[in-house]
Amino acid sequence: MAIEASKAERSGGRIRLGMIGGGEGAFIGAVHRLVARIDDQFEFVAGALSSTPEKARRSGRALGLEPARCYPDYRAMLAAEAQRADGIEAVAIVTPNHLHAAPAEACLAAGLHVICDKPLAASLDDALRLQKAAARRDVVFGVTYNYTGYPMIREARARIAAGELGRIRVVNVEYIQDWLTTALEQAGQKQAVWRTDPKQAGAGGCIGDIGTHAFQLLEFVTGLEVEALSADLQRFVPRRRLDDNAHIQLRLAKGARGTLWASQVAVGNENGLRLRVYGDKGGMSWHQEHPNQLLWTPYGEPTRILSRGGAGTGSAASRATRIPAGHPEGYLEAFATVYTEIAAAIRARDAGKRVPREVVFPGIADGVRGLRFVTAAVRSASRDGRWTKLG
Amino acid sequence: MAIEASKAERSGGRIRLGMIGGGEGAFIGAVHRLVARIDDQFEFVAGALSSTPEKARRSGRALGLEPARCYPDYRAMLAAEAQRADGIEAVAIVTPNHLHAAPAEACLAAGLHVICDKPLAASLDDALRLQKAAARRDVVFGVTYNYTGYPMIREARARIAAGELGRIRVVNVEYIQDWLTTALEQAGQKQAVWRTDPKQAGAGGCIGDIGTHAFQLLEFVTGLEVEALSADLQRFVPRRRLDDNAHIQLRLAKGARGTLWASQVAVGNENGLRLRVYGDKGGMSWHQEHPNQLLWTPYGEPTRILSRGGAGTGSAASRATRIPAGHPEGYLEAFATVYTEIAAAIRARDAGKRVPREVVFPGIADGVRGLRFVTAAVRSASRDGRWTKLG
Amino acid sequence: MAIEASKAERSGGRIRLGMIGGGEGAFIGAVHRLVARIDDQFEFVAGALSSTPEKARRSGRALGLEPARCYPDYRAMLAAEAQRADGIEAVAIVTPNHLHAAPAEACLAAGLHVICDKPLAASLDDALRLQKAAARRDVVFGVTYNYTGYPMIREARARIAAGELGRIRVVNVEYIQDWLTTALEQAGQKQAVWRTDPKQAGAGGCIGDIGTHAFQLLEFVTGLEVEALSADLQRFVPRRRLDDNAHIQLRLAKGARGTLWASQVAVGNENGLRLRVYGDKGGMSWHQEHPNQLLWTPYGEPTRILSRGGAGTGSAASRATRIPAGHPEGYLEAFATVYTEIAAAIRARDAGKRVPREVVFPGIADGVRGLRFVTAAVRSASRDGRWTKLG
Amino acid sequence: MAIEASKAERSGGRIRLGMIGGGEGAFIGAVHRLVARIDDQFEFVAGALSSTPEKARRSGRALGLEPARCYPDYRAMLAAEAQRADGIEAVAIVTPNHLHAAPAEACLAAGLHVICDKPLAASLDDALRLQKAAARRDVVFGVTYNYTGYPMIREARARIAAGELGRIRVVNVEYIQDWLTTALEQAGQKQAVWRTDPKQAGAGGCIGDIGTHAFQLLEFVTGLEVEALSADLQRFVPRRRLDDNAHIQLRLAKGARGTLWASQVAVGNENGLRLRVYGDKGGMSWHQEHPNQLLWTPYGEPTRILSRGGAGTGSAASRATRIPAGHPEGYLEAFATVYTEIAAAIRARDAGKRVPREVVFPGIADGVRGLRFVTAAVRSASRDGRWTKLG
Repeated sequence: MAIEASKAERSGGRIRLGMIGGGEGAFIGAVHRLVARIDDQFEFVAGALSSTPEKARRSGRALGLEPARCYPDYRAMLAAEAQRADGIEAVAIVTPNHLHAAPAEACLAAGLHVICDKPLAASLDDALRLQKAAARRDVVFGVTYNYTGYPMIREARARIAAGELGRIRVVNVEYIQDWLTTALEQAGQKQAVWRTDPKQAGAGGCIGDIGTHAFQLLEFVTGLEVEALSADLQRFVPRRRLDDNAHIQLRLAKGARGTLWASQVAVGNENGLRLRVYGDKGGMSWHQEHPNQLLWTPYGEPTRILSRGGAGTGSAASRATRIPAGHPEGYLEAFATVYTEIAAAIRARDAGKRVPREVVFPGIADGVRGLRFVTAAVRSASRDGRWTKLG
Repeated sequence: MAIEASKAERSGGRIRLGMIGGGEGAFIGAVHRLVARIDDQFEFVAGALSSTPEKARRSGRALGLEPARCYPDYRAMLAAEAQRADGIEAVAIVTPNHLHAAPAEACLAAGLHVICDKPLAASLDDALRLQKAAARRDVVFGVTYNYTGYPMIREARARIAAGELGRIRVVNVEYIQDWLTTALEQAGQKQAVWRTDPKQAGAGGCIGDIGTHAFQLLEFVTGLEVEALSADLQRFVPRRRLDDNAHIQLRLAKGARGTLWASQVAVGNENGLRLRVYGDKGGMSWHQEHPNQLLWTPYGEPTRILSRGGAGTGSAASRATRIPAGHPEGYLEAFATVYTEIAAAIRARDAGKRVPREVVFPGIADGVRGLRFVTAAVRSASRDGRWTKLG
Repeated sequence: MAIEASKAERSGGRIRLGMIGGGEGAFIGAVHRLVARIDDQFEFVAGALSSTPEKARRSGRALGLEPARCYPDYRAMLAAEAQRADGIEAVAIVTPNHLHAAPAEACLAAGLHVICDKPLAASLDDALRLQKAAARRDVVFGVTYNYTGYPMIREARARIAAGELGRIRVVNVEYIQDWLTTALEQAGQKQAVWRTDPKQAGAGGCIGDIGTHAFQLLEFVTGLEVEALSADLQRFVPRRRLDDNAHIQLRLAKGARGTLWASQVAVGNENGLRLRVYGDKGGMSWHQEHPNQLLWTPYGEPTRILSRGGAGTGSAASRATRIPAGHPEGYLEAFATVYTEIAAAIRARDAGKRVPREVVFPGIADGVRGLRFVTAAVRSASRDGRWTKLG
Repeated sequence: MAIEASKAERSGGRIRLGMIGGGEGAFIGAVHRLVARIDDQFEFVAGALSSTPEKARRSGRALGLEPARCYPDYRAMLAAEAQRADGIEAVAIVTPNHLHAAPAEACLAAGLHVICDKPLAASLDDALRLQKAAARRDVVFGVTYNYTGYPMIREARARIAAGELGRIRVVNVEYIQDWLTTALEQAGQKQAVWRTDPKQAGAGGCIGDIGTHAFQLLEFVTGLEVEALSADLQRFVPRRRLDDNAHIQLRLAKGARGTLWASQVAVGNENGLRLRVYGDKGGMSWHQEHPNQLLWTPYGEPTRILSRGGAGTGSAASRATRIPAGHPEGYLEAFATVYTEIAAAIRARDAGKRVPREVVFPGIADGVRGLRFVTAAVRSASRDGRWTKLG
């Protein structure tokens, strides 16, 4: 192996982290805990891991929390931790979508930094209220659009910002999976149940769960806002209550056009998030399942295979890189980068400094955009695809 | 190498072929001549290769035609050949789009078989008139949607027809190129000039040139008709007169939905025709630039890499296959298969027999569908993407 | 589509071609006939297609030869054609390996140009005798190492010759298939029978059939001769009489080292010919099953995907290119290029001119090298891998 | 996302870990610390991170160790920690190769579990002595051949053990990089300096650094021991003192044959570890840079793309899997799996139980095999490739 030590190792003490949600049987909570450990920036010390007090306690102890810090609900956690000299400094919120807003507001009120899973809320109203609340507090608010942590996504973003693709013309993003091909929710599969239930998931099914990732990624990478969309949403599985496939046309700032395709019934696709961007000077293509490569084509020249850690990658990517080229980093490392960037922001904020420019992570504005996207898509689809502004 | 002789060799004499268009400097005419030779089913014996008589003569002689059979225009060719005992039996029409209909009608009137490049005509009206004319004649009329000749396209079509994907839900077809990224037509590049000129190309630019291929391929493979579409057409290059990028949403028979993306400004893509189809039992993916493979996923099982000539491929594919697996066949062979299928139809027709079921090639109905597609797309786009029926 | 007419179209009359071998049930004969048609440089007019006279006649007539030119054996063909004003000018020899040398000598004696399938002969002695015979005649002698016809192989060769990879250090070539995984020859499969029979195939099984292709390709592309080798040959299938897998280490000119792996028992590989070359300034990789791409890496820069017809390819490749980038050319086109280059050489020779530098095709020297390779490999393997010179 | 919580979360307290080596500027030490955190099985509490006491102290404190547990050398660490109730239970040894054996022996003598980076030692004698020492102690000894932690490697191993490929015939492993293409060591690059110095690295350069990984992986996956080898080692960079490229032929148990290619001068390859195995019933291919896929071909059937977490993968893979299919796990997760397996073994051993069968990690026997491989390769190469037993 060719390269110097990981630069991701911590300097300074760990940030004390509490968690809301993520108890037994949860998926994304375990992911948050794991990725918070990767760069050793956080110490998981307290939790209100379930809305069922007994389960909350059992989950916390299984994870090695002190018994006293396994709380029956988040309000109890916030109250008790506020009394401790070594109380939590930040909170990860990993509940189902409709249970993001209330605890997030409570954390803000308690002056804690917030790391909230996406989407930010189950409705645009909730999201906007949260945004206002956050604006009044001098805390860090991260929303874990985790795909922003991939080094080659950083590379693409930096190159586009530098004008390497010229004026952007066409953006194509797709996020296709197949795990909801059958009526899993009717068989009681937990992840399927809440994601297809409008009360827990909000108005968007597939568009909320993964469409928002695709949407955020394309705005993140191109630096262009989507201004309007025309959506065709489908529910292919009988008796499913929310969309499981979505075809959306996009009009972006500066005359760019695009399409977004999200599907959870595209058999043979596991987690197929793919982004392609074309400008008048070049084009690019990136695929989440092989995230260490980025295809880059200056117009009139051969396509380059840029690789994480490899020749030709710049500081934006290397900031998010732990190990040398050819040693694949994956989903967890990208997610960890979001945590580590948030840690950097927290340290800056706590030191009374501005967050440095190079610290990049999705925040509450991205969260609000996500809800605007879902809201507009549902409205457009209900009007037979009428072009609808995102507001 | 493992396998028996090519089955594509001829039995019986060659079919005498004339050509209209395709003289000096033409691209597609040379392709037609080449692919007509591959399986030795046709003999190119006469031509009206240019609308400029001197150029027509020079082109013909350069290609080894007898001087007497290098005609100054197609009417002269049809008249003279009709007098010969060894006169032409079939005609390939390879003129620009707006010059397909008139010679095709003349050939039909002369009782000749017709092989017409796509799109069938520059307008739907012309196409419909031609369809009526053909219906009155007992001749073969092929339209060279050449991508139908790929063995793995045949394989996909046969498997879908057999129900292997179950009920089709989602179809995604894209055909993206980058050769019109800049204003080539303003620099006088011949291929660009006529393709971006409404008078010669018809109402569709990119959608006519390559969108029709994508459209025909998806109907051919899925066996489903597109019923309505919503189109967003763009002209990204300043002063370009026809679309160079198109985003189209589709509603197909039996509740399937789809998208079609055609672009000639997607930098880094050469001839990126890609088709993906998803049903409730499985999914598939095929990419024209690597045409010998077909990804096939029965739901709940690993993806298979089916290969031309390889294990698991059936008679529909092997009919279109010349050489063993691993010895790549490409664009020209697929195109040649269209010619060879047309030859089989001609032989059957000339023998007074029905064309056998297994002989498959695109005909005038496909050609008319292509014009319906272009017409509906242009209309929908002019109405801000209103859903528009194909009629 | 973006580009001008195929440049491969003929100027001048076709070269009259006879064929020895390649009758009913043969594989490679049909391929030769097909590829000879592709660029319209040859006209197939006579044949001694089988050593069984009746079969020879039947095969010839099925292919449309005049009855008088379906000869019962090659001597009869040479004698009769010599008397015709329109007699054959060149002969394709497509018999099993051990039947190449005698007819080739007879053709030479008759002053005919020869296109001989590989390997040149079943023994080095035969090959050397043939080489001497050819040296005395002013005719063209091509050996159909068909992989040399791929445009990206031409591109690689030209770039290496221009020094782009610097001093070559390591060469890795593999040619792996799986069609002899089981004892096909014991089941009577015709292609397997002769290829595993020392009397018909010569001393090499897998190394003769496909190893020679790999060997020739690496010398062709790198421009370096193999000086010595160390071979480990295996026969994995019980009672097989010739090698079905070979591991060979190579020492090349100028200090380069390499390995060659040939296998016909590597399950999952169809026709896996792959070449990688590394020098002190760069590296490259090419794979026959996706022949239109060439990976090219200048040291310290990102890898480029060079594509046939695409940006950055030079005249050596474009000479062998018929259609635009993204429209895949395959095995048959590459093979046709060998025929077309031979045609160019024949035209030059017949016009009393030097064969132009840019006309490139494998000849009798390549054929002799192939036999040296097989001979050295068998000898080395019999001595437990002792390093053995190629002489 | 479709799946339940990561099963890798800890039950029970963390194992207290010390580290020898891995201070400022080290690469692999940081990797060990990171991967030890991933599944939360270990707590890094003490270190002798450098042979320079001041640097050892500084490094330890930067990493958040208590000052008292930042030791100036490993002997001091072992002595002091033995006195603590909360003393270390296991030690990670991440020094250069020649400094593995002595501290490992000292740890064994102290009754501590050992996690040693590979290769086990700089000489076979050292390795054998260590093996004897370990045999006398009831501790766990892991050697971090980290590639064994990849889920699809586990899958391949389990399938081969179950006979799915039949009798193994041919194994092909390559591990090719390009980072030593130029004389980095002469420019003082730290990683290059020690790896090309026989005193620090031992007798093998490239074969020791990466060849041993390739060797171990092929034995691990196939379950077959290499019995003899024939090696050709090269030093392409002027004045380099150890091999930078190696071509090795292998004879394995049960008649299998193979080749191993290791290179650090193959331009365009980053960390190209690739394994292919062929038996009489099937074949497989795996590539480290895209580790979540495994190509699997039952003879006579289409190739399957098996994916980590996807359909058709079994318990051996899922044991090493954290997150759902399509969410790529990479190098660090695979490495973490080695740590987590070692943790499971430690917990079993400490509980006085047998290590369960499903707990799989490379141990001292693998380490010794690695040295046998290097020793035999160097000897064979010095005798012009004579076949040499591994002993």
